[in-house]
Amino acid sequence: MTNEQYDIQNDSPQEKCGVFGIFSNKTGSDVASQAYLSLYALQHRGQESCGIAVCNEGLMQYHSDLGLVPDVFSKETLEKLGKGNMAIGHVRYSPIDQKSRSNAQPLVVRHIKGAMAIAHNGSLTNAAELREKLQMEGTVFHTTNDTEIIINIVTKKRIHTNTIENAIEKAMYEIQGAYSLLIMSPTKLIAIRDSFGFRPLCMGNLNGDIVFASESCALDSIGAEFVRDIEPGEIVVADKNGVRGIKTHCGQKSSMCVFEFIYFARPDSVIQNASVHNARLRAGEFLAEEHPVDADVVVGAPDSGLDAALGYSRKSKIPYGIGFIKNRYIGRTFIQPTQEERDKAVRIKLNTIEATIKDKKVVLIDDSIIRGTTMRRIVKLLRETGAKEVHLRIASPPFINPCYFGTDIPNRENLISYKLNKTEIRDYLSVDSIGFLSIEHVSKIAENANCGFCNGCFTGNYPIPEPQAAPKSKYDQKIGEN
Amino acid sequence: MTNEQYDIQNDSPQEKCGVFGIFSNKTGSDVASQAYLSLYALQHRGQESCGIAVCNEGLMQYHSDLGLVPDVFSKETLEKLGKGNMAIGHVRYSPIDQKSRSNAQPLVVRHIKGAMAIAHNGSLTNAAELREKLQMEGTVFHTTNDTEIIINIVTKKRIHTNTIENAIEKAMYEIQGAYSLLIMSPTKLIAIRDSFGFRPLCMGNLNGDIVFASESCALDSIGAEFVRDIEPGEIVVADKNGVRGIKTHCGQKSSMCVFEFIYFARPDSVIQNASVHNARLRAGEFLAEEHPVDADVVVGAPDSGLDAALGYSRKSKIPYGIGFIKNRYIGRTFIQPTQEERDKAVRIKLNTIEATIKDKKVVLIDDSIIRGTTMRRIVKLLRETGAKEVHLRIASPPFINPCYFGTDIPNRENLISYKLNKTEIRDYLSVDSIGFLSIEHVSKIAENANCGFCNGCFTGNYPIPEPQAAPKSKYDQKIGEN
Amino acid sequence: MTNEQYDIQNDSPQEKCGVFGIFSNKTGSDVASQAYLSLYALQHRGQESCGIAVCNEGLMQYHSDLGLVPDVFSKETLEKLGKGNMAIGHVRYSPIDQKSRSNAQPLVVRHIKGAMAIAHNGSLTNAAELREKLQMEGTVFHTTNDTEIIINIVTKKRIHTNTIENAIEKAMYEIQGAYSLLIMSPTKLIAIRDSFGFRPLCMGNLNGDIVFASESCALDSIGAEFVRDIEPGEIVVADKNGVRGIKTHCGQKSSMCVFEFIYFARPDSVIQNASVHNARLRAGEFLAEEHPVDADVVVGAPDSGLDAALGYSRKSKIPYGIGFIKNRYIGRTFIQPTQEERDKAVRIKLNTIEATIKDKKVVLIDDSIIRGTTMRRIVKLLRETGAKEVHLRIASPPFINPCYFGTDIPNRENLISYKLNKTEIRDYLSVDSIGFLSIEHVSKIAENANCGFCNGCFTGNYPIPEPQAAPKSKYDQKIGEN
Amino acid sequence: MTNEQYDIQNDSPQEKCGVFGIFSNKTGSDVASQAYLSLYALQHRGQESCGIAVCNEGLMQYHSDLGLVPDVFSKETLEKLGKGNMAIGHVRYSPIDQKSRSNAQPLVVRHIKGAMAIAHNGSLTNAAELREKLQMEGTVFHTTNDTEIIINIVTKKRIHTNTIENAIEKAMYEIQGAYSLLIMSPTKLIAIRDSFGFRPLCMGNLNGDIVFASESCALDSIGAEFVRDIEPGEIVVADKNGVRGIKTHCGQKSSMCVFEFIYFARPDSVIQNASVHNARLRAGEFLAEEHPVDADVVVGAPDSGLDAALGYSRKSKIPYGIGFIKNRYIGRTFIQPTQEERDKAVRIKLNTIEATIKDKKVVLIDDSIIRGTTMRRIVKLLRETGAKEVHLRIASPPFINPCYFGTDIPNRENLISYKLNKTEIRDYLSVDSIGFLSIEHVSKIAENANCGFCNGCFTGNYPIPEPQAAPKSKYDQKIGEN
Repeated sequence: MTNEQYDIQNDSPQEKCGVFGIFSNKTGSDVASQAYLSLYALQHRGQESCGIAVCNEGLMQYHSDLGLVPDVFSKETLEKLGKGNMAIGHVRYSPIDQKSRSNAQPLVVRHIKGAMAIAHNGSLTNAAELREKLQMEGTVFHTTNDTEIIINIVTKKRIHTNTIENAIEKAMYEIQGAYSLLIMSPTKLIAIRDSFGFRPLCMGNLNGDIVFASESCALDSIGAEFVRDIEPGEIVVADKNGVRGIKTHCGQKSSMCVFEFIYFARPDSVIQNASVHNARLRAGEFLAEEHPVDADVVVGAPDSGLDAALGYSRKSKIPYGIGFIKNRYIGRTFIQPTQEERDKAVRIKLNTIEATIKDKKVVLIDDSIIRGTTMRRIVKLLRETGAKEVHLRIASPPFINPCYFGTDIPNRENLISYKLNKTEIRDYLSVDSIGFLSIEHVSKIAENANCGFCNGCFTGNYPIPEPQAAPKSKYDQKIGEN
Repeated sequence: MTNEQYDIQNDSPQEKCGVFGIFSNKTGSDVASQAYLSLYALQHRGQESCGIAVCNEGLMQYHSDLGLVPDVFSKETLEKLGKGNMAIGHVRYSPIDQKSRSNAQPLVVRHIKGAMAIAHNGSLTNAAELREKLQMEGTVFHTTNDTEIIINIVTKKRIHTNTIENAIEKAMYEIQGAYSLLIMSPTKLIAIRDSFGFRPLCMGNLNGDIVFASESCALDSIGAEFVRDIEPGEIVVADKNGVRGIKTHCGQKSSMCVFEFIYFARPDSVIQNASVHNARLRAGEFLAEEHPVDADVVVGAPDSGLDAALGYSRKSKIPYGIGFIKNRYIGRTFIQPTQEERDKAVRIKLNTIEATIKDKKVVLIDDSIIRGTTMRRIVKLLRETGAKEVHLRIASPPFINPCYFGTDIPNRENLISYKLNKTEIRDYLSVDSIGFLSIEHVSKIAENANCGFCNGCFTGNYPIPEPQAAPKSKYDQKIGEN
Repeated sequence: MTNEQYDIQNDSPQEKCGVFGIFSNKTGSDVASQAYLSLYALQHRGQESCGIAVCNEGLMQYHSDLGLVPDVFSKETLEKLGKGNMAIGHVRYSPIDQKSRSNAQPLVVRHIKGAMAIAHNGSLTNAAELREKLQMEGTVFHTTNDTEIIINIVTKKRIHTNTIENAIEKAMYEIQGAYSLLIMSPTKLIAIRDSFGFRPLCMGNLNGDIVFASESCALDSIGAEFVRDIEPGEIVVADKNGVRGIKTHCGQKSSMCVFEFIYFARPDSVIQNASVHNARLRAGEFLAEEHPVDADVVVGAPDSGLDAALGYSRKSKIPYGIGFIKNRYIGRTFIQPTQEERDKAVRIKLNTIEATIKDKKVVLIDDSIIRGTTMRRIVKLLRETGAKEVHLRIASPPFINPCYFGTDIPNRENLISYKLNKTEIRDYLSVDSIGFLSIEHVSKIAENANCGFCNGCFTGNYPIPEPQAAPKSKYDQKIGEN
Repeated sequence: MTNEQYDIQNDSPQEKCGVFGIFSNKTGSDVASQAYLSLYALQHRGQESCGIAVCNEGLMQYHSDLGLVPDVFSKETLEKLGKGNMAIGHVRYSPIDQKSRSNAQPLVVRHIKGAMAIAHNGSLTNAAELREKLQMEGTVFHTTNDTEIIINIVTKKRIHTNTIENAIEKAMYEIQGAYSLLIMSPTKLIAIRDSFGFRPLCMGNLNGDIVFASESCALDSIGAEFVRDIEPGEIVVADKNGVRGIKTHCGQKSSMCVFEFIYFARPDSVIQNASVHNARLRAGEFLAEEHPVDADVVVGAPDSGLDAALGYSRKSKIPYGIGFIKNRYIGRTFIQPTQEERDKAVRIKLNTIEATIKDKKVVLIDDSIIRGTTMRRIVKLLRETGAKEVHLRIASPPFINPCYFGTDIPNRENLISYKLNKTEIRDYLSVDSIGFLSIEHVSKIAENANCGFCNGCFTGNYPIPEPQAAPKSKYDQKIGEN
């Protein structure tokens, strides 16, 4: 899918979150700035809200708000967070109807053992049951985040355990689903990954300080060295005694989200030993094998299709071309053109390069296709620019099932591949031919990856049961914050 | 004290909060706007943060933030809150070290029975014990507000009661201290006042809609008619069946904060049947009886001393004069002058009118004196303007004890009347004479008031025991939000 | 008139500007901060835009914008202006249809002799003719300010004169009308006042630095000593050789705007040797003599009628009362109530104090009455609060003529005293009686003032001919800036 | 050069401006929105300030400010500009020391014939002489723009001519240098290009409305059809009678800035009949011919080197690779890392893709090199990522001379190619080899272009004499606006 559509229409599956944490052996470190810089590198994983919590010898300071990292954090805000020896940070995406400042993370609370901060990437499949159970016991909820469920369960376990890591270990028997978590207590920074390893989480080393991040690109951004991925099911504790892993919940067959490689992750990240950029190149190469075509030029939809387009070009020997130019000054304050203007001119954010397209047979590559509305406009642009033929190649299989593991996929009714067959899609988009990557190949794109994959969104085969909607009280969750 | 000091130094006891609520029989009412206008009228009760929660057929929308009412609410924000049949609003002051967006109210949560919103004016005396107990049971706290304690206790009672008002009734046996509360459930708006009636809370009628407010001036502001004060200990429930009072906790000897009449409340409010303006006039009259002086003019420190100055003038027959002019354009963004500029010229925010002062024997009236720093500057101004004599008269007794009932009084160490005797104060302020209102008279200023008074800040005699600090976990509450 | 009306409706004559200047013998002085603080004190003379220009050894830095002083200037902006040895500042009001950033002053330009900055309070009566003539010679205008006309004429004279003060001296033969000017060249600060002395302008001394200001309250605000008023027609030059006056244009019979004493100037200012506060007290006293009434209490419309109300009370022996309370938190961002809300409740910004009003015969005092719309609402408020009788007394004569000398009076069609006779006004406002100050008395309010007065707005007798509209080119001045 | 450096250091030649204009036969057209959308497409030509002036039946409304298009214009601002039948818009870059709101364009003034608005791209070579002459005649300048000189000269001519186009025609005999101008009178929109055609300016058709723009990409953005380039020296007048060209100043040998093709213009623009994208591909191809090398992959510095990298790859048959990923969320509010952080981690804004670079012999392509500081960091990044060899190829000749024609090139002392010889540059940048495009080839990159080129920045051969600094008055232009 193209980023173009961020503004025109929310037409892409959305990663819900990114997390970052740092434990320094030195008190008075500028851990807030490290978190700030890393959140920039993880911004693609969530643009709705962000936050940072700093711990300075037990005292926690935090700041979070709706907005992008540079909007939420100023020099002054970072200075107020102050120095410390630990910090966690979070970027968040959420569906428009849950857009709320109170849902911004990290969530910072007080309980019987003092303060606790938590940052969460993922989604629980038994959230409704757990929430119902907790409410029956008199629990008050301040947010609609699954994260608050986790923090309540951990707190209840904490009353009867000696350490927070034991409380987490026990809580993990109750919570089901996808979660990569960072929990900060007054003295410890703890990284947790669910047993299936749906979402990535890795560890790095910054001059002796321990850092955790959703993706390795965040480590690069602050000059930290990659150490290893957190294992599925592992609890990693960093404190003054060093780093240790608790593996009670490890050993499950892993089930990493393959869409991290297809679209979510940044191409410069390396996840589970596999390069994201290379995975996309390979997807393009497989696509060239599966769906060859006679054409003059291969162009990628910017920026999501560029890597796969280069792979297709290399395999097919059809020249790679630069077909589009994006206006890099289009920001969030862009005033929408009227429908009339839109119909006659979608070239404000994206324009074609005539020299590449005109009178050519074009292979157009994108990573995936959700609703199809944006792709239809892009194809129209190519036609208007004089393309003789347009052959669309999609570097993933058709998207036909919901995801319960921390991404935001539209309802099936909005998925073009669920609604239409391949011929109908071809006609709707006005392309000369269309080809999707096969399910067989999609599992092979991340060469060398040391993990299994979840491809439920393509196949409907999920590693754990789909969530059952729990009975709700009449007014449950009917709260909106502005 | 003068308002002047708001900016120069925080040199006044601060009322902590104001609350407003409306229950309309008409769905789709613009209850948010009514709340907005009323919060303007209550802004003097809290300038740190404010918020409004609207309930529309069970669905609650809320918005709150740090800042004054016009800063927090824009036309757009109000529109997002939407129409509804109920709303509650809150303005809040808090000590600088608790300045935090998460402490802004109304607090809106979900529990077993759906959503609940709460707005609170007051302070619990057993908050520490209650918090400890709740935490021992696994409760997670998101704020440092006493309000969150109340909401947790009410929720725990709610599991075993048929109605929210019964849960509140039971909870009132456990919470001690000062509280005027508004609680909004999906179908009811409930007003509660503690048994001592420390803080004011009244009910009004706006074309058939029921409104509650901390002060009657808020009713005036929206054109509502005053109906009556909520009784100390009373629970008033407004729902589609009408309004009814539950008086289980009524009957206690009441103990209204006398400082509401001296300084906190707006002069145009009527509280417990007594006019605030008249109370201040009477304070001035008593003061003239107790501490007469031979002088040419009586001037009030703006704006807090103006009413009492007029009373003093009337009783003493010394002419009332306008001695000061405040610059009404000085706002919060004012850039502080340097110390040097300040020493030579405090006349930026406040200037004297030479025609009133020069070569005159001046009686200067203010409502109270806390630290004395601002008063010292004002006296210096009068001297520089050519006053022959300056006789300070304070329309309340010396302030020497802490308050535990919802105001923010500085530590004893900062109270000038605690540190210095009357002669020392006179010398520190460089006045020719000083006189305070007697404790006997202070209880009589609110003529016709149908309540008893708490004057613990002057006498140390409190109607309920002073709070005991509870044992805290090492890291308890060590959280700051920016 | 009441300030209340600023927001509800623009229902008052508006002073158009205030100016401030400082010449320091010390280079590297913080002249920008002195200007900033002084503009605060002059803010009542203009709230639309403001600006400061600093001169540091010939290099001028300036900043101006639409907005109040605290909105336009931040700590950062002041720092960017830097240190220097001279500064001039300006606050400006202008009719809504000329609201434009390019009209903000000081106007800073380059000409043959380098840079020049100018700040202007007043209005030329031959502006149209001068502009036409300059345009015929090829002059390009960037603003619609009269100020730009002055600067072009001075510049043209400057080519043929040795000094800027000579150029100004020559220019003054051509420009007619009201002007109090500050002109800053790279080495000199020059204060100029027109021959009639319509607008005030005074000189002060701040530890040896020379300061000029529209009103003495600005001197007080920075701790400067008052030295003297600039004489009508005088050119005062401050440079490294000291201060000297050029009196070529002096000697005319002066014609100070009497409305400065009635409403425009701050009560703590002293103008032409007369206290503004005392002038208003005297206006009240004269009013009590001219229009006595049997009543219980005298209240002033806040804040404009307070001084005169006190004077009326003193003379009549009827007690002075505090009848109104203004909400001091109402700011510019206030969201307007709907018409319905407005009709039933104007008490958001202004409320009555029932204890003062109810069952009383009230004398209501204001300084003047323009449209009458706001006064009508205030009277309605008094009636609703239970006033038995309302007797309106206005501390100036009826307003029936336009002003051409630097104030912004509505068209005659909007002047209630032009449209209606006294009985009709009484009925329109629903008062029991009405009385205006006589023209004989208005000229005597400023006791000891060492000047003559212009009372053209009451009498139609102007000291110089009314301006003739000049022929305009078809598209002249049809420019709006947003 | 890379865009990366915009933030790190201002390390690129800067185009100074872009212009847009529209003349509609329909009154009440939304010409402001057309200008707004087009300025987005021209934003790369100037990021300091922007503005739009709308003409509605002779009445001009304008708005301009410092900032990017989406910052300066909101929905509200555009609505205030209103509908009309003509508009001109402008984006501007300027050296940091002239950053001033008063220099923002369009410049809108009043003169003898009414209002006039002007937008200007370029730079006059005899500006100092003209300014001096005008000042000697008594002209006052409000800005430091050359544009104000043009407007004064045109105005002076206008007194003695029948039409504005005649005045412009006469003025063009006096002004020398580079200028692409749009001038809007109350009834006409006029486009002018200097005789050498230094800067581009083209005409389009939008459903019968006439549009002018610096680049064709602006026409695409609003769906307008390209009609033709304005000829060097041509004056094109659009009014209700249609469009006509005045060619008195045409016929000169043209001298288009070749840097428009190398870097300034957007790759999707077509200028003087030549595709900008193709010109850059050809530059890469020529570079491969001139400076071949044995390597594994060709990568472009993002985004400025991408087109040429693809050309180099095609010609050399060395595979094209995606070597870098830019963080697209880095905005203007980015908080600078400390020097320490910077040294160890430049990967916040730009990261390498290890899969492309590691263990490879890399050809790195960029369009030009100015100071070399950013390039040095990029090379360091490649080394750290494991590149075996780095061969730098620059798609233009060494930059060694100043430009007087409307770009902002640093002083010679800052040009790396002026200071160092090729070997020294190679060593400074730590590359294994370096190659620049030859001067012979640079003139051939724009295949089919129907114009001559200025390559003075590479050769020192300028089509018109270099400007002579004029004698200045001591304080001339010493004004800064904040």
